[in-house]
Amino acid sequence: MSRPDRLIYLPLGGAGEIGMNAYVYGYGPQDAERLILVDLGVTFPNMDTTPGVDLIFADISWLEERRDRLEAIFITHAHEDHVGAVGHLWSRLRAPVYARPFTASHASRKMEEQGQDPAQVIVTDPWPNKVQAGPFQVSFLPVSHSIPESSGLVIDTPAGRIVHTGDFKLDVTPVLGDPFDRDLWAEVAGDGVKVLTCDSTNVFSPNPGRSETSVGPAIRQLVERADGMVVATTFASNIARLKTLAEAGQAAGRSVCLLGRAMRRMVEAGVETGVLTDFPKTISPEEAGNLPRENLMLIVTGSQGERRAASAQLSRGKYMGLSLREGDLFLFSSKTIPGNERGVLQIVNAFSEMGVDVVDDDADLYHVSGHANRPDLARIHQLMNPQIIVPMHGEHRHLREHVKLAAESGRTGVLAPNGTMLDLTGVTAQIAGYVDTGRTYLDGTVQIGALDGVVRDRIRMALNGQVVVSVLIDEEDEPMGEPWVELMGLPETGASGAALSDVLEADLDQFMGRASDKTLADDDKLEEGLRRIVRQSAQAEIGKRPEVKVIVSRLSA
Amino acid sequence: MSRPDRLIYLPLGGAGEIGMNAYVYGYGPQDAERLILVDLGVTFPNMDTTPGVDLIFADISWLEERRDRLEAIFITHAHEDHVGAVGHLWSRLRAPVYARPFTASHASRKMEEQGQDPAQVIVTDPWPNKVQAGPFQVSFLPVSHSIPESSGLVIDTPAGRIVHTGDFKLDVTPVLGDPFDRDLWAEVAGDGVKVLTCDSTNVFSPNPGRSETSVGPAIRQLVERADGMVVATTFASNIARLKTLAEAGQAAGRSVCLLGRAMRRMVEAGVETGVLTDFPKTISPEEAGNLPRENLMLIVTGSQGERRAASAQLSRGKYMGLSLREGDLFLFSSKTIPGNERGVLQIVNAFSEMGVDVVDDDADLYHVSGHANRPDLARIHQLMNPQIIVPMHGEHRHLREHVKLAAESGRTGVLAPNGTMLDLTGVTAQIAGYVDTGRTYLDGTVQIGALDGVVRDRIRMALNGQVVVSVLIDEEDEPMGEPWVELMGLPETGASGAALSDVLEADLDQFMGRASDKTLADDDKLEEGLRRIVRQSAQAEIGKRPEVKVIVSRLSA
Repeated sequence: MSRPDRLIYLPLGGAGEIGMNAYVYGYGPQDAERLILVDLGVTFPNMDTTPGVDLIFADISWLEERRDRLEAIFITHAHEDHVGAVGHLWSRLRAPVYARPFTASHASRKMEEQGQDPAQVIVTDPWPNKVQAGPFQVSFLPVSHSIPESSGLVIDTPAGRIVHTGDFKLDVTPVLGDPFDRDLWAEVAGDGVKVLTCDSTNVFSPNPGRSETSVGPAIRQLVERADGMVVATTFASNIARLKTLAEAGQAAGRSVCLLGRAMRRMVEAGVETGVLTDFPKTISPEEAGNLPRENLMLIVTGSQGERRAASAQLSRGKYMGLSLREGDLFLFSSKTIPGNERGVLQIVNAFSEMGVDVVDDDADLYHVSGHANRPDLARIHQLMNPQIIVPMHGEHRHLREHVKLAAESGRTGVLAPNGTMLDLTGVTAQIAGYVDTGRTYLDGTVQIGALDGVVRDRIRMALNGQVVVSVLIDEEDEPMGEPWVELMGLPETGASGAALSDVLEADLDQFMGRASDKTLADDDKLEEGLRRIVRQSAQAEIGKRPEVKVIVSRLSA
Repeated sequence: MSRPDRLIYLPLGGAGEIGMNAYVYGYGPQDAERLILVDLGVTFPNMDTTPGVDLIFADISWLEERRDRLEAIFITHAHEDHVGAVGHLWSRLRAPVYARPFTASHASRKMEEQGQDPAQVIVTDPWPNKVQAGPFQVSFLPVSHSIPESSGLVIDTPAGRIVHTGDFKLDVTPVLGDPFDRDLWAEVAGDGVKVLTCDSTNVFSPNPGRSETSVGPAIRQLVERADGMVVATTFASNIARLKTLAEAGQAAGRSVCLLGRAMRRMVEAGVETGVLTDFPKTISPEEAGNLPRENLMLIVTGSQGERRAASAQLSRGKYMGLSLREGDLFLFSSKTIPGNERGVLQIVNAFSEMGVDVVDDDADLYHVSGHANRPDLARIHQLMNPQIIVPMHGEHRHLREHVKLAAESGRTGVLAPNGTMLDLTGVTAQIAGYVDTGRTYLDGTVQIGALDGVVRDRIRMALNGQVVVSVLIDEEDEPMGEPWVELMGLPETGASGAALSDVLEADLDQFMGRASDKTLADDDKLEEGLRRIVRQSAQAEIGKRPEVKVIVSRLSA
């Protein structure tokens, strides 16, 4: 007897953080559903929890094990948290990647950079064009966001229509790229929407969102009134903002120079794919260096305080031969993402020391968000009028609040954090099960599991310092010479005033002298004893218990 | 010929960060000035820049070398960034410590905890009482802040009167503790003020500050409407807020329980020193555990997301036998200090997962700042009408903005970051020189310099991982057996699919086989070669260059 078909939803990433989006939909008999994946993004590491890690992906093991059932991957837009993992993870999934031209240009580059075939990325026209992917018909539905060509997905299934919003805002004048087209979305809703899977990022923002166009006048005024060089930073992918900034420079009679690889690359991709037209002429850093500073406007990467980006480098001195000085103006046309405050403030203070005036967006004049605020979300709920609302793209608190927002207008929202498989076949959503999810770290060139212990060990070394103990044992299991220690990340002297290494070595030597034949013959016992001595002795001497590595060298070995 | 007397100001900490306040004033012949120190605080470490460090102090080496000239230490109030280093650093300074009773009770405890004589802390009455300290007459001038008994200092010198504001706000209804007394400050200003050394924390806040009293109604309403247990957190030292919270609980018929050592200690100190009266009766955690949750209000430590505080522990499960669950309410009656966002959001999301409703101060309803905002600073400038304004207690950006604020009303502000010695003898401030300043880390029980390299090594291990290479060399300088490696914080396998340790050992063994007699006989050469091999080999295998420690064991040694 064959099992009935069902429609499932399974977030592997993005429903528990703002980042590493990866949402699975499936349709078919239980455990034999044909699958599609929406987005394959990254999230960024930090020193607190992921020191040394380069990028973080959703753990896609569940999907990898079922990749024979995976029909296609759809990328909603070109932000790193939606497309950033495509190159790194594609070889584990091997399904065609669909995206609109600007997004596809980024996805292809990411494939190439990781040695994958860029032809796997298929440039796709938007609604009403549809991609057939097994039982799914998928169409890109243009919408406004903070990057060109962002799209929701209309996913038609035998069980009904799903609208997956992607990241979006309701902007009818977005400077460039697709405006929010209410009639188009109403047309999609007209046939009935079963499920609205909806961006939750700004659910705590109480006022309606503002248009990208609204920041133009304030920026133009600021640039016009500036005396020295003007430098502005924003997210490199916000090409509309780049254009607004560059036009403000041009209007003030300034030559515009783009600094930072990501920024130049975004503008190039925008021009190549036709989403960006009429961008003011830019000059090279070399040309900029030859102009009077009051005739210059730099637009630079690094709005989040990233250490290697142009902003941070300028705050430490020169970048590409250019530097700031007293009387210059630096504009953050951006908001600081929570967790990045320290890096941003370090830059602001460094500029302050140079006498540079820093203007940020505290007064909400020079930046608008790319996400739908609370009232905008309520509007889209009403417009799409779905049976079920599934909040996505948010931390747990955002998802939970979005469910409450749905309830405020009598709608049904379902809280489904990463790993929650929903059965959406019926009139209401059912929890179909839980899947182990997690994170995969890109560390150098290696993918490691978040729970492999590698990062845990790094954090321990960083917090506690490290002692390496080395002992030599001869063929008769007798110690040869004295144990010695190497210290890393530990103070040289402690309470006694003697060198910490001398104190530890003396205590270890005593232990070796006292150790029984049985202990000396047993690596595990010996290591355990030596480790204990180091930790006790260090605790007394410096008030810390370091990590300890014991190396027993046996001549007989 | 004797040199003329001069009046100097030298910030060792606090003028370059919000934290670790330590300001020196001196009067007398150049390089023989008699000195006083205002405040001796800490700042807090973070994983980005100071992993494993327990506390951070200003580097007081300059003052320690001149401690025979140090007359006294004055503590303006009991916040950690003003009093926190007293116990740790007193033995390097050995001067009497003056403070008002509540502050003195904290300072004494800190002395005792570090094995110093608490009798060195002298309880002092406020203005008009004066302490004679060499050429200085110093008086504590009561002012409102977010802790009881905060005080400015009136420092009379032969060159004129200095008013050092300490941390302050202009609150005439501060719930408890000293209100801002305009007439008193005007009386002090009446005799003429030469220098106003002034708090800069809130110079970027454009609106006048609000009174502590203003949060009461919103908090009472929130608690009254809550169904389940109510838990509120704020800074433990904000006793006025604790009282407001506790009274809101009491008014709603709830029993109040304080959780967290710092909170109970603050309330005890408040009662003992008489600054706190009529605090609602509290119950123990055990009693709380026996009450219905709708009859309970917990007030807990950990508003900044500190991992070991009550809030964080409750977000992970039980604390003192109490736990939260669906339908409970958690209130952050506090703002998140920049840099602490990640820890706070982790707690918020953990509560969200439990179904707890979290209310924060996004809407400015449940918290007010303890610092004077921009218009309040302008008011105090006008009221005190000093010859010179010296901004203090701020990052560089705050100090610089405060100088601009002074200029807006035609006053002279002087930018003097940590280490800048000002000569304040004349009508205008002169820069008298620059002193090397920096930070001292308390690491376990040891004080280490910020530039000692200890923390740098920890950060490197955390970012890059660590390889320990061990080789045995016999009496004839020939290798015995093969080199072996131990990995810490590194992935087990890399590009080749073989164990990373096997790959490294094979490459190292090859190197040993090729190594010349000269290399084998020379520890430095051998170590350098082995290190290079590990880094090259790891780069190829895992795309990272780890930290490498080489241990050469020589039988001849």
